[in-house]
Parts: sequence; C-alpha cells; structure tokens
Amino acid sequence: MNVINSAEWRIRMADGSFENLAPESSLVTRMYLSFERFLKNLILIVRRFLEKSWNIGKNEPRKVIHCLKVGIALSVVSLFYYMRPLYNGVGGTAMWAVMTVVVVFEYTVGATLYKCLNRATGTFCAGFLAIGIHWIANQSGKRFEPIIMGVSIFILASAATFTRFIPAVKARFDYGTMIFILTFTLVSISGYRIENLLNMAHERVSTIIIGASLCVITSILIFPIWAGEELHKLVISNLEKLAESLDCCVAEFFSDSEDTTTNTKKMLAFKCVLNSKASEETMANFARWEPAHGLFNFQHPWGKYLKISASMRSCACCIEALTSCINQKDQASELLKNQLTNSCQQVSSSTSEILKELALNMKTMRKSSRMDMLIQVKSNAIQELETLMEQLSGLLIIQPKNDQEKPVTRTSSTNVIPLVEIIPTATFASLVIEIAMRIEGVVDVVEELSKLAKFKLEDADMMIKQNKAVIKNIIN
Amino acid sequence: MNVINSAEWRIRMADGSFENLAPESSLVTRMYLSFERFLKNLILIVRRFLEKSWNIGKNEPRKVIHCLKVGIALSVVSLFYYMRPLYNGVGGTAMWAVMTVVVVFEYTVGATLYKCLNRATGTFCAGFLAIGIHWIANQSGKRFEPIIMGVSIFILASAATFTRFIPAVKARFDYGTMIFILTFTLVSISGYRIENLLNMAHERVSTIIIGASLCVITSILIFPIWAGEELHKLVISNLEKLAESLDCCVAEFFSDSEDTTTNTKKMLAFKCVLNSKASEETMANFARWEPAHGLFNFQHPWGKYLKISASMRSCACCIEALTSCINQKDQASELLKNQLTNSCQQVSSSTSEILKELALNMKTMRKSSRMDMLIQVKSNAIQELETLMEQLSGLLIIQPKNDQEKPVTRTSSTNVIPLVEIIPTATFASLVIEIAMRIEGVVDVVEELSKLAKFKLEDADMMIKQNKAVIKNIIN
Repeated sequence: MNVINSAEWRIRMADGSFENLAPESSLVTRMYLSFERFLKNLILIVRRFLEKSWNIGKNEPRKVIHCLKVGIALSVVSLFYYMRPLYNGVGGTAMWAVMTVVVVFEYTVGATLYKCLNRATGTFCAGFLAIGIHWIANQSGKRFEPIIMGVSIFILASAATFTRFIPAVKARFDYGTMIFILTFTLVSISGYRIENLLNMAHERVSTIIIGASLCVITSILIFPIWAGEELHKLVISNLEKLAESLDCCVAEFFSDSEDTTTNTKKMLAFKCVLNSKASEETMANFARWEPAHGLFNFQHPWGKYLKISASMRSCACCIEALTSCINQKDQASELLKNQLTNSCQQVSSSTSEILKELALNMKTMRKSSRMDMLIQVKSNAIQELETLMEQLSGLLIIQPKNDQEKPVTRTSSTNVIPLVEIIPTATFASLVIEIAMRIEGVVDVVEELSKLAKFKLEDADMMIKQNKAVIKNIIN
Repeated sequence: MNVINSAEWRIRMADGSFENLAPESSLVTRMYLSFERFLKNLILIVRRFLEKSWNIGKNEPRKVIHCLKVGIALSVVSLFYYMRPLYNGVGGTAMWAVMTVVVVFEYTVGATLYKCLNRATGTFCAGFLAIGIHWIANQSGKRFEPIIMGVSIFILASAATFTRFIPAVKARFDYGTMIFILTFTLVSISGYRIENLLNMAHERVSTIIIGASLCVITSILIFPIWAGEELHKLVISNLEKLAESLDCCVAEFFSDSEDTTTNTKKMLAFKCVLNSKASEETMANFARWEPAHGLFNFQHPWGKYLKISASMRSCACCIEALTSCINQKDQASELLKNQLTNSCQQVSSSTSEILKELALNMKTMRKSSRMDMLIQVKSNAIQELETLMEQLSGLLIIQPKNDQEKPVTRTSSTNVIPLVEIIPTATFASLVIEIAMRIEGVVDVVEELSKLAKFKLEDADMMIKQNKAVIKNIIN
C-alpha cells in the first residue's frame, strides 16, 4: 500500500533524480496521527519511567523499605485525626505533627536525627525569643507594638539567614536556622492577634515532638539505614575499586592483546573515587548525629573518612593519567617494556595489596599486623624498579641538526631505542611509582583512624583465642 | 609571685629531679577559675565567629544583600497580619504565606523559582487528588472512609517517596514531591474533620501564591543573583585557573630556583576545578528554571557547562600528576631538560592560550576567529616536541647483570644519561602533550555550546560595524 502510494506521488526532478511528494492529508487524519504519536510517546515515557523505577527497587531494596517506612509513619500520625481521644488531646495542631513527619523523615538515621534535633531546637529557641520580644513590645503600648515586632523580624531574619552562609553553621544547623526564622516570624505575628500565645506555643512544641519522635523511632527500629555505615561501606568499596583499577591498568599496559573492552569497566572503577566527594561529605555530616550502632561509637571519627577519601582521590588522579599511557602503549618499545614488566607489576601488585589490606582492616575494624610487612614489600619493589632503571643507563645521543642522517652503530650489547618509544613506558613506570608513594597518605590516615576508633590488634585477638584454646585444654 | 609559689611547692624526687606540687585550691577558687576559663573560651568563640562573619560579608557583599532581601520579604508578608483589611482578606491562613516565604526564598533566582513552582504545582496536584479521593471515600459511607483515606495516604506517600530516588525526578521535582505528600496528607486528614474543604484549599493555594510571588519579585527585582550567571562565571574562572596552573607548573619545572613557595598557590589553582563538581551540578539544576537574563536566553544549554567542566577535570587530573614530576625535578638530567625546555614551553603556552581564548569567548559570548589558528599552533608545537624527541634517539644499553661495571665510552657527540634521569623530563613532556590533547575535549564542548547558544562571530560583528561606518559616510 505504502509503496504504491509513494510511487504515485514520485516526480522526476530537473537533475534526473526522483522526489516524493506526500499527499496532503485531511485535518482529521493529521490530528489523529499526531494524537497517536503523542500517545505512543507518553506510553514510551511511562514505560521507561517504570522500568527505571523497577531497576532501582530491584538493585536497592532498602530504598523501597524506606518508602514503606515513610508510609507507615504518615499513616500512624494521621491516626491522630481519625481517633477522637487523640484528636481531642492535641486538637487542630495535629497538622504540625504531620508536617514534621513529612519534612523530617530522611533516608538515613543521621539525616532524620539532624533534622529532628534542628527542628526541635530551632522551634524552642525561636519560640522563647519571640515570646520575650512580644512581652517587651506589649509593654511599650499599642502604637509601638507593630513597629517593634516588624523591626525585630527584619533584624533577626536577616541575621539568621546570614549565619547560614558560615560553613560550620551550614554543615550542622542549616535546617535549624530556617526553622528558627519560621517559628520566630509565626509566633511574632500570631502574638499580635492571638491572646493565648503560650498555649499555642505549647501545642506546637508538643506536636512537633510527637512527630519527631515517631520519625526517629520508625527510622531506628525498622531496618535502620545508618549514614555512618553507608560512609564506611562507600570508603571501603572505593579502596577496593582503586586496587582493582590499578591492577587492571598495569595488566592492560603490559598485555599484548589489542582488546581493551573487556577490562574497561574495571579499569575505570577509579572514577567512582573521583566522583564521590559530595556524597561522602553529606554522609559524614549526618553520621555525626548518629548514636552508637554496629561497630561504631557515638562520635566515631567520621572526619577521618573524608581525609582517607581525599588521599584516595590524589591516587585516582594518577590512575587517570595512567589510562592515557595505555592508549599510547603501541608506541612503546617492546624491549624496554619487557625489561620493566616484572618490576612494575610487583610495585603495582604490592600497592594494590596494601589497598586491599586497608579495606579489610576497615571492614573488620582491626589493625593488621601484616601492614608493616606489606609496606616493606612495596618499598622494596619500588627500590628494585628504580635500581633497574638506573642500570638501564642510556646513551642519549644529542645530535646536531645537520647530523641527523648519520646512522647509529649497533653493537651486540646495545639496542637503539628512540626517546619517543622510551617515553610511554617511562611515564607509566614513574606514575606507578608515584601512586605507590601516594598510597602512604592513605595508610597514614587509616592509621590515625584506627587509633582514634580504637581498632583492635589482630594479634591480640589471635592471642586471646589461642589462650582460650590452651585454657580449654588445661580444663579438659 | 608565681616563681615563689612554685619554689615553695617544689620537692626533690628519688631520681634527683624536682617536681612541682600545686597547692590544693579551695572549691570557690577552682569554681571561679573554671568559670573564668569558660568565659574566656566563650568570648574567643564569639570573637572568631564574628570575625569569620565579617570576612564573609566583606568578601561577598551579595550574601549580605540576600539576607536583607529575606528580611524585607518577611517584613512585607507579616504586614498581612498587622493591617486589618489585608488580614480580613486571607484570615488565619496568612501563616501559609509566611511559611512559603521562609521556606522558598533561596540565594539564587533559579533556586527560588524552582522551589516556588514546585511548591505551587505540588500543592495543586495533591489538593485535587486529595479532594477527589475524599469524595470517593465520602460516597462509600462513614465506616469505610477512614480506611480508604488511610490506605490512600500510605500508598501515595510511599510511591511519591520512591520517585524521589529517581535521578531525573530528584534533580527537578524533589521539593515538589515532598510538598505533594505534605499537602495530600494534610488535605486528606483535614477533610475528615473540616466540612468546608474547598474553601480551605482555596485559601491555602491563594496564600501560597501570595508568598511565592513576593519571593520571586524580591528575588528578581532587588539585586538578582542568577544561578546561571554564577555557573557561567565559575566555569570561566575555572578555565582561567587551569591555564594559570599549567603555565606555573611548566615554568616551575624548567626554572632553576629551588624556591617553590611563591607559585604554589597559583600552581594548585587546578584543585578548584577538581572540587567544583557538586556546586556546578546544583547551579545547572537551578539555572534551568531561570527566565532570560543578561546574555542568556531561557533554556540556555546549561548542561553543556557540566560537560565543559567534566573535560576540564580530566585535564586537571593530568596537571595533578604534573605536580608530582616537579617534586622529582632535581633528579632530572639537565641536558635533556635543556633540550626540551623550549618545545615543552611552547606546547604548554599554546595550550594555556587556547584555554584563555575559550574563557574570553565565553565571557563575551562570541565565537573567536583565532581559535582555529591557535589549535594549529598547538598542533604544530606538539608535532615539534614529538619530532624533537624522535631525533633524540637514545642508545639504550640493556646491560647483562654481570656487565654493570663496564664504563660506557663517551664520544664527542653522545652523552650518557641513565634512565632514571630521563624519566622525570620524559614523564613531564608526555603529560604536557596529554594535557594539550585533552584540551581538545574542552574546545569541542565549547564549540557545541557556542552553536546551541548562538554565539556571534567576532568578525561578523566587526563587519557590521564597518558597514555601518561606510553607510554613515555615504549618507553624509
């Protein structure tokens, strides 16, 4: 049908080619077609959206659990309205409890606690201050009252907004400051109209406390998601990814195969390390508010995790530079590559071994007795690679320009390699050494962390186990 | 006094050393001392806080202006309470206007618009849906009403919370989804008690619109701070910083002086590029909501700015690796360094010239006619450096291990340089080339941006000016 149609409307152009002229369709047909297209697009969008949602839910079931938790908390708080005795207790201000639940309930326990405590403190401080100022304004007569109130709102709102720009305040009390401004303004202006101010303040505070405690309880008791634990896991997985990337890059550079696609994903795992700064900072901020949980005490040194990540990022940058060497590996002299392969691989494998050991230490929260040994192995490997490179002393021929044609004489024990062919391998080796050096920054911060968080010694534990076994033997 | 005191309480220890025993002070003295210490600390903290605030205010006066804007908006909205005619118009729901102003007023116009539109849309959708469900529940009798309402709250709250995890929704409608949940729950539960539901909804929507429009007007009319403009400026300054860093690093590597402190700050300017990812993404998200302003149209291609930054970060990573070469510059062979100095500097200066030109193009929103020429210059410089390195073909001596002692014979035209001394310079040169190559990624994205944002041609403008001058001459 379509073919006939198109043949029917085909005309010959001046240059001999054919061109199709579509028949002009009626308005109804066009509207129908555009509506059909619109529907198809809509279905496609909805389908993609659902597919994406399904994938998120499948990969991270905890997110689904979080959603159900929000649903539960909101249903529970709306009971206040449906049950007469509860409703009579708090009255119309139950709204504040609902609002608190919606606004305060966050994905992690830390974030929820941060918001709850900020909301409670902000409301409390602002309420007191507003009632105080209201009393002063009241004393100064009906005429000055609105002026005093207006000026105090202007000054306090401006000042409080300003403190939100100070990094230390922003990190810990940003939400509290906003609630402070909100409550202060509301109480101030309500005070002008409502006589029973103290009663209103009391109702508001009590409903906020009801909402906040409901959030905290739901958040902590039903499948809690701790910001600290997430941060801990993220840093550990980043350590492992860094080790994996390094291993893959080195293997890729020294392998003969041209096929780089298989390992590309593993090779580029370091990008996660470079991109996780913002989320780590957020998590560390929230983790500060969390009580002791799992392996972590209250006020676990979360700040150190950010330092570990900063050190990791400086390593990841070097790995990023490594990947560019891999693109040039075809230009590299095979001879030099073969000479350095083993030593380079030793350096990189000892480095990634250290990274894996650090990840394991953090996972088990134990100090490893192997670390000193591993660092020694790494230093030896670096030393060996450097010695090897020193041995490979080169006769670098600086030729005068008109002397270029003169062929270089080859002897049995020397090999002529132009500088361009030396460079990829030399750069690669020097970057591998640089990464191996920078790893020590990570080791140092993990060491600091292990001191502050009082990691147990692996050996002490082993000794206790052995002692227990000995005692058991004696008893039996 | 103190000396006498300490002498009085000094006793001789068993090992012959002296030790001071402080006299036991009375409880009152100790309390006084600890109170004094507390006061001193408090004063210190307050002083530091004020100093920090003063510095922020002095360096960024726009932040102070923003605070005053918030104060003004809040004072204006609280007028609704103080003036009887206005109060009678909207009644007690004026609270929602105040709340909207506090919650919605953000630093940039884009953020304010994002929150206003999200709040309005979220409230509107949720209100309609809630009233609809309320009607259905009402039809099914008093007994089923609370059950239907409770179940609908649970399902909708969970589903809406889940959509907040989908990146596309999170970036644009996160706040709106929260407001949707809030309004839906509030209207649902209020509907159970309050008969005059439509009236309440109407009052709420109108007060929110009053608050939101007040915010938008204040935000746009009084010293507006545009997220898009901030992003634009940030990317330009990052381009300039990258150029500066590159120049400084190359100058530092080839300079003879040991003093690295003077340029360290400029050299490390690239760190800003690495660290600005999160803030750029936030700004780009907000910039999407902004109307046309200054040089930018509505829906200016802000996404391209993020791509420019991503390309810049990959260059910045290489510069980070460059800095490690600088630490090894003492090991580098002077001879090789001298040979490569000029070419390396040419590559780097032509690269930084391109970066500066890109910054200038973006600043003036014009396509530069020089760009092709600059890229050609850069390509030639790279070519020259590579040719030079090819000419410097080396006689790399792979010595058997027992052959190490054999001295290498020097001839008049050759110089023996061990590999370790070649490596720092070779790495440096290869990284400089890599940066020069990666810059092309930045150039490409800026090119795309200039097409999408319809940058004018510098020359076309000049031609128009010249034409105008010619026409003027003809007329006169």
